[in-house]
Amino acid sequence: MRLARATDQARTYAEVRALSERLAEPLSPEDQTAQTMPDVSPTKWHLAHTTWFFETFVLERHEPGFRPHDPAFRVLFNSYYQGVGDQYPRAERGAITRPGVAEVLGYRRAVDERIAAIVDELDGDACDLVELGLHHEQQHQELLLMDIKHVLSRNPTRPVYAPQCDPIDAGPDPARWVAIDGGLVDVGHGGDGFAYDNECPQHRVHLDPYELADRLVTSGEWIEFIDDGGYERPDLWLSDGWYAVQQHGWVAPLYWQHIDGEWNVHTLGGTRPVAPAEPVCHVSHYEADAFARWAGARLPTEFEWEHAVSTAGSQDRWFALDGLHPVAAPRPTDRGVVRQAAGECWQWTASAYLPYPGFVPAAGAVGEYNGKFMSGQMVLRGSSALTPPGHTRPTYRNFFPPAARWPMTGVRMARNDDR
Amino acid sequence: MRLARATDQARTYAEVRALSERLAEPLSPEDQTAQTMPDVSPTKWHLAHTTWFFETFVLERHEPGFRPHDPAFRVLFNSYYQGVGDQYPRAERGAITRPGVAEVLGYRRAVDERIAAIVDELDGDACDLVELGLHHEQQHQELLLMDIKHVLSRNPTRPVYAPQCDPIDAGPDPARWVAIDGGLVDVGHGGDGFAYDNECPQHRVHLDPYELADRLVTSGEWIEFIDDGGYERPDLWLSDGWYAVQQHGWVAPLYWQHIDGEWNVHTLGGTRPVAPAEPVCHVSHYEADAFARWAGARLPTEFEWEHAVSTAGSQDRWFALDGLHPVAAPRPTDRGVVRQAAGECWQWTASAYLPYPGFVPAAGAVGEYNGKFMSGQMVLRGSSALTPPGHTRPTYRNFFPPAARWPMTGVRMARNDDR
Amino acid sequence: MRLARATDQARTYAEVRALSERLAEPLSPEDQTAQTMPDVSPTKWHLAHTTWFFETFVLERHEPGFRPHDPAFRVLFNSYYQGVGDQYPRAERGAITRPGVAEVLGYRRAVDERIAAIVDELDGDACDLVELGLHHEQQHQELLLMDIKHVLSRNPTRPVYAPQCDPIDAGPDPARWVAIDGGLVDVGHGGDGFAYDNECPQHRVHLDPYELADRLVTSGEWIEFIDDGGYERPDLWLSDGWYAVQQHGWVAPLYWQHIDGEWNVHTLGGTRPVAPAEPVCHVSHYEADAFARWAGARLPTEFEWEHAVSTAGSQDRWFALDGLHPVAAPRPTDRGVVRQAAGECWQWTASAYLPYPGFVPAAGAVGEYNGKFMSGQMVLRGSSALTPPGHTRPTYRNFFPPAARWPMTGVRMARNDDR
Amino acid sequence: MRLARATDQARTYAEVRALSERLAEPLSPEDQTAQTMPDVSPTKWHLAHTTWFFETFVLERHEPGFRPHDPAFRVLFNSYYQGVGDQYPRAERGAITRPGVAEVLGYRRAVDERIAAIVDELDGDACDLVELGLHHEQQHQELLLMDIKHVLSRNPTRPVYAPQCDPIDAGPDPARWVAIDGGLVDVGHGGDGFAYDNECPQHRVHLDPYELADRLVTSGEWIEFIDDGGYERPDLWLSDGWYAVQQHGWVAPLYWQHIDGEWNVHTLGGTRPVAPAEPVCHVSHYEADAFARWAGARLPTEFEWEHAVSTAGSQDRWFALDGLHPVAAPRPTDRGVVRQAAGECWQWTASAYLPYPGFVPAAGAVGEYNGKFMSGQMVLRGSSALTPPGHTRPTYRNFFPPAARWPMTGVRMARNDDR
Repeated sequence: MRLARATDQARTYAEVRALSERLAEPLSPEDQTAQTMPDVSPTKWHLAHTTWFFETFVLERHEPGFRPHDPAFRVLFNSYYQGVGDQYPRAERGAITRPGVAEVLGYRRAVDERIAAIVDELDGDACDLVELGLHHEQQHQELLLMDIKHVLSRNPTRPVYAPQCDPIDAGPDPARWVAIDGGLVDVGHGGDGFAYDNECPQHRVHLDPYELADRLVTSGEWIEFIDDGGYERPDLWLSDGWYAVQQHGWVAPLYWQHIDGEWNVHTLGGTRPVAPAEPVCHVSHYEADAFARWAGARLPTEFEWEHAVSTAGSQDRWFALDGLHPVAAPRPTDRGVVRQAAGECWQWTASAYLPYPGFVPAAGAVGEYNGKFMSGQMVLRGSSALTPPGHTRPTYRNFFPPAARWPMTGVRMARNDDR
Repeated sequence: MRLARATDQARTYAEVRALSERLAEPLSPEDQTAQTMPDVSPTKWHLAHTTWFFETFVLERHEPGFRPHDPAFRVLFNSYYQGVGDQYPRAERGAITRPGVAEVLGYRRAVDERIAAIVDELDGDACDLVELGLHHEQQHQELLLMDIKHVLSRNPTRPVYAPQCDPIDAGPDPARWVAIDGGLVDVGHGGDGFAYDNECPQHRVHLDPYELADRLVTSGEWIEFIDDGGYERPDLWLSDGWYAVQQHGWVAPLYWQHIDGEWNVHTLGGTRPVAPAEPVCHVSHYEADAFARWAGARLPTEFEWEHAVSTAGSQDRWFALDGLHPVAAPRPTDRGVVRQAAGECWQWTASAYLPYPGFVPAAGAVGEYNGKFMSGQMVLRGSSALTPPGHTRPTYRNFFPPAARWPMTGVRMARNDDR
Repeated sequence: MRLARATDQARTYAEVRALSERLAEPLSPEDQTAQTMPDVSPTKWHLAHTTWFFETFVLERHEPGFRPHDPAFRVLFNSYYQGVGDQYPRAERGAITRPGVAEVLGYRRAVDERIAAIVDELDGDACDLVELGLHHEQQHQELLLMDIKHVLSRNPTRPVYAPQCDPIDAGPDPARWVAIDGGLVDVGHGGDGFAYDNECPQHRVHLDPYELADRLVTSGEWIEFIDDGGYERPDLWLSDGWYAVQQHGWVAPLYWQHIDGEWNVHTLGGTRPVAPAEPVCHVSHYEADAFARWAGARLPTEFEWEHAVSTAGSQDRWFALDGLHPVAAPRPTDRGVVRQAAGECWQWTASAYLPYPGFVPAAGAVGEYNGKFMSGQMVLRGSSALTPPGHTRPTYRNFFPPAARWPMTGVRMARNDDR
Repeated sequence: MRLARATDQARTYAEVRALSERLAEPLSPEDQTAQTMPDVSPTKWHLAHTTWFFETFVLERHEPGFRPHDPAFRVLFNSYYQGVGDQYPRAERGAITRPGVAEVLGYRRAVDERIAAIVDELDGDACDLVELGLHHEQQHQELLLMDIKHVLSRNPTRPVYAPQCDPIDAGPDPARWVAIDGGLVDVGHGGDGFAYDNECPQHRVHLDPYELADRLVTSGEWIEFIDDGGYERPDLWLSDGWYAVQQHGWVAPLYWQHIDGEWNVHTLGGTRPVAPAEPVCHVSHYEADAFARWAGARLPTEFEWEHAVSTAGSQDRWFALDGLHPVAAPRPTDRGVVRQAAGECWQWTASAYLPYPGFVPAAGAVGEYNGKFMSGQMVLRGSSALTPPGHTRPTYRNFFPPAARWPMTGVRMARNDDR
């Protein structure tokens, strides 16, 4: 979403900010207040926190005579930035009934107006922070949807967020293997467009030849795994994974329920039968890994994934760096095409989330954005049906702990090419 | 609140039900949704649960052609009655964003109308259940206020529920000892008026002579206790109490904060300096017990308390059994008067909450109201500033676990009369 | 065990101390080291702690030129006496591999010799402390056996402590009700003999007429309770009890195992089939209470139990206050006799463990022996098959939390006498 | 330790097995029984489990007419091999008082004799399992020492395992940077000698130029880190690391205590002052990472470490693959030498413990040895002062969770070479 600065940034700012509020519109003030587990944040917290980001990292530094909108918000809506002061405890965000939704929207209005008043005068560094703020807000747009999905799932009345917003795809079948040569290849972000610090620097890695499935694992395949005792055989699981299965009583993906002999799934569009052809979603890294072992395959590394998508091509819309218009997808080679690389589910890789060689966090408190989480998490690649337009690129590194199931997490198979 | 049945019950019903809604009026939908600890229930849950009580125990049994208002509510708003089906988990009430406040008020309207349609035809047993439901709702009126006090306390913006609704009393000083003879006395509810099953049967106990303080322990006295190292001396504490002090880091009553060298207290009217003459409130049984040991006294038993209030008299308004008009307080004897028996703080006693000899729970699921909690809790007597009119009587047995601090819990001293 | 002082105390001291060591003899150093849950203490800790008691409360105060045997032991073997310094954490006693068993026995030798050197010169107060120390050691003799029973139970090789030391009694059948008049009666310790402070002062209580079962509930009756769904019906349970059932997965008394369609029980004599006529043992207060509700009865209060045993008589050996010679049991009245009052299982009562009116803890740190535990526990009366001779009396108040199952806890029924 | 099979294996077997018992000799039966945290196993459990390994994976498969030594041991001493049956819960190994030490030594005798009786007849696969069993036992020799160090550390009497067995090294000072070219290099085990499956297959990785410190971080440097507020500055820490600091209250390495203004350290040789020149030990990965950030450096990746040690050479004794005789260390290049690569402390790397490309676990239940733990752990390289002779090689991958501090964990710095 790198912008023709003076010209486009104000417009993009308005569009991204407006989308967040549109996403909250179907939700009542009560819906927007609840926090159903420590990982989940209330909708109105997302709306306020993304605003706090602009207030703290743009206005405070670049607005003449800056004064905070409300001093209490400085702490309430600071997620985890130690460098800019205290934070209200994450697990207790559901206790914050005030400011209410109306007041949060007022906060958004006020900050938007103050940004608008200075945006044309901002220098390059400030523009970079605005741009970072917009990408940050886009991330929270997906989090907002993931989180409200969890909130509504806990309600026995099975509320609907919006009709039909989950994918029910007649996916490609059967899956085919796309062969990739490997060798000494470049990975990581190297061009001009926007990227997070964790995608940099571009660097060289050596890959052995490998093959990647041309589509994601489907719900139908997952039911075969379940029916074959997948959740009951310790030999298929990492030790930590087997422990998680026992501890949490996992027998199926999150949001699946067995009702009258049939698997159903809670979605933002309500509860409906599982569609066998759609990509399986809401499985942990442990489950993805066990499934792969059961299938006689493995998960791809993040570099195998990135290189394949860049090389073999994909038929998905890869949203261009202007954030708004899809660019043509890379041309598929003769050897196959990696379908469903974006827009369905994030895809667990076999790679731990660690710094690239030569990684340098962004300067100042925004350097806390990515680097300090490089421990205990696994990388996911691609994007999901909830990822906003313009927030997808082949070098993007998403990350979650291996037991996480509430993000839009899916699975793609890989295997060695032993020819 | 026993009623001239056919005449008065409809009117009382309307008044009690209206008060609940008035108590919720200052609160936003967001406020009414949050649950800040497992013991706390959201405001709108209280509004719905009290309605569920009438629907389940009156309408379902006595309304011809009964059909539930919403089948999901049967589970969502059943607190703990195993005899009438499943319950939604208590600790997760904050996850229930729907029904929202408006829908809950609609539920109230609908049930009120259905009750109104049959109330004149109800027989004695049914009238008893209506009466029980009204007392139940009054209990929840106090819980609603206790709970929202906790919710608002977690908010660093220090929201105000309503100006000046906490007591700031120029209490009587110094405290004097009221001597009571004891002997073989009757305790428990024995008359015609309404009482819970746990106040029955009236029975005989033997009391040695004793003395009771004529007022509650004040905040000023509590500051002396703190300043004398009360929270740092294990010799003053029950073993479990000392463990609680260590575990929770207690250094003062709940809601007290030391700001700029002065003790402040969070109240429903906002945060203000502690007033030395007001009764100390929001202390656990453990703290009350330790304070008494420090003061060279002890807590009264529940029977000492009840007998003294009945015998020595009190100057408080004891709300009459019609629930609406205060009756004259018993005349004080020459030997002193027990002040602040009601309307300030509930008063911890030295008595465990156990059944009276010959106790028989009410028949059916309403028998779960009191009896099954007779384990691990301590009795409190009197009433508090948040107790609604008509919900106070000398035989009333309130109860909480010894570590509870979020109810309106205060302290009265007793000692042996060794003359 | 009050003694003809100068004459007998040395002899009794030697006998009690020797018994502790005899109880440890069947156990290896490894056995004597393990702690299988926080409530359990290692055997060698019991041997050392009882010695520490004499060192701290007798030698330190009464031995000229006292010096501690080993300064580290002052902390290691202080159980919970805040008044005499720090304590090693209770839950970590199993980490203390040194001093080993041999060194602990050396500690016992040394302290015994030092006590022997001064015992004839001790004044009355010091003699009282020696006597308290002996009763304290007797309590730990039972704890030692309870605890090692738990340790050995966790071992799948099912080790045997000693053949046949658990009761297999052809109990009296059927149970009969013994009717007791009640009235205004004296309870608590009032005579010259030894008693703990918690049994005092003797005082007057009023009892309604009641009936007590003439024997304990049997294992056969408990199997009927299980077979009738006793552990699956929430209506039978206190709320806390039902929670405990769910949390711990209780389906039978502790140490019971269903093997090949038959109930077996782990005992100090090994694992053997449950004997239907023997008193059921190792049930929690919650289970005792649920059983009573299922049986249409209730638990007796501690005063009903004490008064009945004193009045109606018992056929058990009640060990006399000299601790060594059984006295004749009280004569049964015409109305029945309370059998199995002692020597089988401790008997849960309906009474919370609270101070008697006018209770004054012993002076100094030994005052921590009983009083500070008067919270959250229930009283048991009688004694068990593991209680040492001379440690049983009708006023004895044992106490454990309501969920405890590893003591020798049994059940006796009571009911109102509504004639 | 690959062996001239028929000739040497029996001798090596005897030597390795004897060493385990020698390590236990200074310990009493009590010492050998305790388990002070879930990660720690009792000494006698190590002695038994290593024996179980030979019984299960060699005797059961290769001894004619095999019968188990004791059926109960099959479960008691199975650590985590799901493929060969049930396991006794890890966290409760301290509850297993029987078999005692003498019986465990008898178990060792019996299995050793049975192995001796067949060892000369074993085929290649069986010999491989014997060899694996010996390496397994060597790993447990280090675990045994690590674990007993923890056990003895919990004892306030500060017991000594053996005089002076911890390193007090006059380490090289100041540290110097050894520059390594990087490029496309081979890593992983590729030769004939023994290696675990997780060191294979050898494969190619690309490394940018980098520099490695020629020695480990010292305790003196760590004190500088502490004194500069290292444990108090969140900006130095990974998010998970900072959480661990708060949760556990870390202020220094494990086993360090500040006594009278000086840092002391618990060792197997007793408690003594920290020696500034010795390598710091018993720090978590989080601490190592924070220290590196504070020092303006970083941790090396496991491949940087391996490549540097192979290329630049080391002056440490690298024990040859016959397990008994040190081979000459690789010759240092002109550019420096990596000292302290082995024999001091294991060295945290920046690499997560993951499978190498093409990794295939060993067949059968021994395949559970390494592969199933490839999640949530970090790789350590080198070896420690507690590692037995013959158990060190440059491709060896040790691994522990990032919060682990009880292994012999030290720190080596790395940095980019940006020339």
